[in-house]
Amino acid sequence: MSEETDKENKEIKKTKKFNDNSVYIGKRPTMNYVMAAMVILNRGTDCIIKARGRAISHAVDVSEILINKFFPTAKYKDIKISTEVLTNDEGRSSNVSSMEIQIAPK
Amino acid sequence: MSEETDKENKEIKKTKKFNDNSVYIGKRPTMNYVMAAMVILNRGTDCIIKARGRAISHAVDVSEILINKFFPTAKYKDIKISTEVLTNDEGRSSNVSSMEIQIAPK
Repeated sequence: MSEETDKENKEIKKTKKFNDNSVYIGKRPTMNYVMAAMVILNRGTDCIIKARGRAISHAVDVSEILINKFFPTAKYKDIKISTEVLTNDEGRSSNVSSMEIQIAPK
Repeated sequence: MSEETDKENKEIKKTKKFNDNSVYIGKRPTMNYVMAAMVILNRGTDCIIKARGRAISHAVDVSEILINKFFPTAKYKDIKISTEVLTNDEGRSSNVSSMEIQIAPK
C-alpha cells in the first residue's frame, strides 16, 4: 500500500471516529478510552461506549471513571445489552454478548 | 466447627439465597447462574443479577442466555452501574465497578 493511501486511510479512520459518537472498547489502557469519550462529551453530544465479550467489564470501568473523576455533570442515559452473532474465517458462527452505554454530557 | 453448626450455616446460606431475589455472579459455570435466576423468575418475582469487576461480562452473558434461550417472556427492567470501595485485609481501599441487571419475568 503506497504511503499516500495509507495516510488517507488513517485520516478516514480518524474522521469516522470523530463523526461517530461511539467509543469502541478494546485492549488499550483505560485512560485512552476515557479521553476519547471526553472529547465527544466536550462537543456537547451524547457519547456511546460500546463493548463485546470480556471488554464489557472494561467499558463499565471506563464509564465510571469518566463520570466519577473527569465529567461529574455527565449522566447515564441508556444501557443496552444484546447478543451479536460473529462468524469466523471458516464460516463458523458464535454468539457474543455486547453492551452499549449511552452517556449524556448534562 | 461442629458438623451441626456447619449444616445450619449451609441452611441459612440457602434460605438467604432463596429469600433474596439476587444472583451473585462469581467464577462458577454460566449455567449455574442461569438456573438460579430461573428459579427466582419462576416464582413470578423480578430477579437481580449482580456482579463486580471482571465478572460483569459474565453477568451479561448469563442474562442474555437466560432471556434468549430459557425465559423468552423475561424482559430487562433496569440496569445500574456503580462503583464500590473495597477494603482489603491491610486496610487499603480500592474502587471496583459493579453492575445490577434487574430482569422481570413478563
